[in-house]
Amino acid sequence: MKVYLYDTTLRDGAQAEGINYTVSDKLKITKKLIAFGIDYLEGGWPGANPKDLEFFQEAKKLDFNKTKLAAFGSTRHPRLSVKDDSNLHNLLKSEAPVITVFGKAWDLHVEMALETSLENNLLMVYETVAFLKDAGREMVFDAEHFFDGFKNNPDYALKVIEQAARAGADFIVLCDTNGGSLPKEIRAGVEAALKIHSRIGIHAHNDSELAVANSLEAVKAGAIMIQGTINGYGERCGNANLCSLIPNLCLKMGVELNCQDNLKNLTRLSRYVAEIANLHPNPYQPYTGQSAFTHKGGVHASALLKDKGTYEHIPPELVGNHRKVSISDQAGVSNLLFNSENLGLSEEEVKTYGKELVAAIKAMEHQGYQFEGAEASLELLVRKVSGKLLEPFKIDNSKLIIEIKEDGRVLSEAVVKVRVGDTTIHTASDGNGPVNALDNALRKALLEIYPNLSELKLTDYKVRVLNEKAGTEAVVRVLIESSAGEKSINTVGVSTNIIEASLKALTDSLIYFLINNSEGTVS
Amino acid sequence: MKVYLYDTTLRDGAQAEGINYTVSDKLKITKKLIAFGIDYLEGGWPGANPKDLEFFQEAKKLDFNKTKLAAFGSTRHPRLSVKDDSNLHNLLKSEAPVITVFGKAWDLHVEMALETSLENNLLMVYETVAFLKDAGREMVFDAEHFFDGFKNNPDYALKVIEQAARAGADFIVLCDTNGGSLPKEIRAGVEAALKIHSRIGIHAHNDSELAVANSLEAVKAGAIMIQGTINGYGERCGNANLCSLIPNLCLKMGVELNCQDNLKNLTRLSRYVAEIANLHPNPYQPYTGQSAFTHKGGVHASALLKDKGTYEHIPPELVGNHRKVSISDQAGVSNLLFNSENLGLSEEEVKTYGKELVAAIKAMEHQGYQFEGAEASLELLVRKVSGKLLEPFKIDNSKLIIEIKEDGRVLSEAVVKVRVGDTTIHTASDGNGPVNALDNALRKALLEIYPNLSELKLTDYKVRVLNEKAGTEAVVRVLIESSAGEKSINTVGVSTNIIEASLKALTDSLIYFLINNSEGTVS
Repeated sequence: MKVYLYDTTLRDGAQAEGINYTVSDKLKITKKLIAFGIDYLEGGWPGANPKDLEFFQEAKKLDFNKTKLAAFGSTRHPRLSVKDDSNLHNLLKSEAPVITVFGKAWDLHVEMALETSLENNLLMVYETVAFLKDAGREMVFDAEHFFDGFKNNPDYALKVIEQAARAGADFIVLCDTNGGSLPKEIRAGVEAALKIHSRIGIHAHNDSELAVANSLEAVKAGAIMIQGTINGYGERCGNANLCSLIPNLCLKMGVELNCQDNLKNLTRLSRYVAEIANLHPNPYQPYTGQSAFTHKGGVHASALLKDKGTYEHIPPELVGNHRKVSISDQAGVSNLLFNSENLGLSEEEVKTYGKELVAAIKAMEHQGYQFEGAEASLELLVRKVSGKLLEPFKIDNSKLIIEIKEDGRVLSEAVVKVRVGDTTIHTASDGNGPVNALDNALRKALLEIYPNLSELKLTDYKVRVLNEKAGTEAVVRVLIESSAGEKSINTVGVSTNIIEASLKALTDSLIYFLINNSEGTVS
Repeated sequence: MKVYLYDTTLRDGAQAEGINYTVSDKLKITKKLIAFGIDYLEGGWPGANPKDLEFFQEAKKLDFNKTKLAAFGSTRHPRLSVKDDSNLHNLLKSEAPVITVFGKAWDLHVEMALETSLENNLLMVYETVAFLKDAGREMVFDAEHFFDGFKNNPDYALKVIEQAARAGADFIVLCDTNGGSLPKEIRAGVEAALKIHSRIGIHAHNDSELAVANSLEAVKAGAIMIQGTINGYGERCGNANLCSLIPNLCLKMGVELNCQDNLKNLTRLSRYVAEIANLHPNPYQPYTGQSAFTHKGGVHASALLKDKGTYEHIPPELVGNHRKVSISDQAGVSNLLFNSENLGLSEEEVKTYGKELVAAIKAMEHQGYQFEGAEASLELLVRKVSGKLLEPFKIDNSKLIIEIKEDGRVLSEAVVKVRVGDTTIHTASDGNGPVNALDNALRKALLEIYPNLSELKLTDYKVRVLNEKAGTEAVVRVLIESSAGEKSINTVGVSTNIIEASLKALTDSLIYFLINNSEGTVS
């Protein structure tokens, strides 16, 4: 059995609160989706806003390979002919080979929202699909609110899709627009629609936390197209999450997908889209989340040492994710053993320092530290406890002056006094913001002695206010990612003072880089 | 039909990466769950760590009303008798009226992880349940990995639960421990188990994004207990989310729940637990998320003006949530109209200033502003555009000095020069961190003139680094929540300088408070 994937990350996904793509963002995501091998890619609603018109202009320059680009729009205006409706002309002007048109399948909506007659709505559906089909496009008809319509007035809901079928739609997609349906209702709707058209699709929303289950149920009932989004982004609670659907379909249900050979790129795709959407990736997201294969309990960690399959439903590599055993309050020596290689400890050393280390980790976690995602700081802690830490420099004193002037100009200046062996360097730098000034001043002080420090780039800076309810006195955790070539260095700092927390994380990243990259580091 | 809810937020929920409850956190959540009317509350594993032992000691002082407290533990050690196993004695010592014991139902696990014989595992299950049942406790048996076991060796999986049944278990709960099962596999397992025991429960994990669907399928197949957690917190991808299951069961499936009269408190419960767990609430979470009933598209907003049911699967008030129509890039004048009352605009004013306002909002969003969750800043912007903003004060200049001394002491000092009418106040203050120093200095400057400012408390401070990949030069968005009595004031500030962003948000909160609470505000 084969199912076609129709991605609407760029259209319905953009309806998510907090998402606001630029045209360049949309093009970046488009390239990744083409490379992944998505069958249909809905780019936007040309004409609804200038951004989407521009997107379709730019998209013409891309090589879509096997992916088909779709433009989205509505049926004609109730009181205009198809020829006079500029929205339909915009769809054609997009030059997208696929056009997806949504029409209302719920009688209530026709009368309430469209304010037209049930009869006219049927005409609108027929004429719109026929007009665009005649123009030579592949036509997808999205039957909006199909399941609510089918519950309230099944005859009318089916009449709507009959019109689309008669007008030549290539696919009829049944939409659970409000996301309130249960799997058995989805099955009933799909089975009824299959009597009218052989190529049925499903468009599910997650308002009942059932979008994935509903999409799978539709496939079992005979649907062959799934509309969804990467990470499940979309209006309100989101759309069906392709990042869960894809592995569920091909690893668990034996369904054939055109993109199945790229399954191992799924995690990368998921995180890339999150980054472009400027949303924190959901760590608990199935398959692709950072915690999806993280084991925390001591019982699980000790079982995993014996057999990796014991607490995993699939091997994480299949979707490009990886296994983690976290070092935390709940961790025992099993967890440390599991990570010993990464931490640079021998089994012998784990036995010697294990208890002291777990106690040190717990004490720092109590302050607000978190070493998940700050492996370099953890390694420095391990070196410290086991007496193996050489400090390539020491900061004696640092000072920051920030001034916001009457004309709005903001000045940030950092002064640092740093010791390397017997040498003291006292210097200063400006910066774009206080942390940048501090970073600049520290590098300026150290570069003369450690010239290879210029290879280290700061690539990510995250701030998390921990006890937010403490207001401006809250404890702040700063996570910094730096990279030198391929390898990235993740460090953490915690303080009630954001500047101090940043300085700690910065210092850790510099120390970690220097002890791993300098011969003859001054201790 | 009636279903019992068994909450394990405090035990399996604590296995989530990033969650680390204190005993006091656990007691706080316990009180809320009792008030909500959860049937069973799993408090922890007494003996696995000192925290959980202490929790059960403290829990004895609480009034559990109709909620039953459960202690969690494993079957006896393979090579110890029940009488010699201190873990079982810890369970009894907890004095919890319900004891939940997990035992292995997957043959592979018995041999691989427990390293004992299949026969001994059956004895372990029987003896453990019988021993604890004889001690007079209500017994729940969690059949770990039941569905994987049932797939690989159905006879053995069923033999395990037979032992628990024979030993007097009150409930047998089938666990999809690895979270990899599909609904039809859940149904098959539940149906087989019902031939052995009449009181079957389900414990689902979300690794395939099917935990809610699998739990509902189990109920349809005859299960009468659901184990889950608030917000779906739990190991890896989490447990079945009670915040989705509860409304699905009672609003959509007509299942009777003891807590159903408290449904309207669900959103509050969900956010409370997130706060105690110190996790950002997932805005897209079904039913209880901040975006769950947020409408962004112009088409949706204009339909909602006509009928609120058109794009909502349930009225948000049923679960204590509320409807939002967001003002954003995608918004048209419909969205402004929907919010006009909140924004203090007449319909007339929306018509006059609508376009200018939408342009101003778009320009600020482009800089990184976000007014969803910063309604007070939006209202100030509206007043500014429509010429109605009186400024109760003006900051001419502000300066911050932060010094990190050799001994680790950190000093933060703020100097501000503020003008109120013709008066200039030039003052300074220390603080616990730079933003706190700034807040203190501003209040010090303004309190003499606006004594009622002392009512305003800063209650929440959030920082979001926007273009994180820009490292320490990144744009930072600060969201501040203040409150004066009942009403909370949400403001936002954006800058590459975190201090400037904080100052903007702080200033907005002070201005908003003063123009709404001061008679004769100096303009």
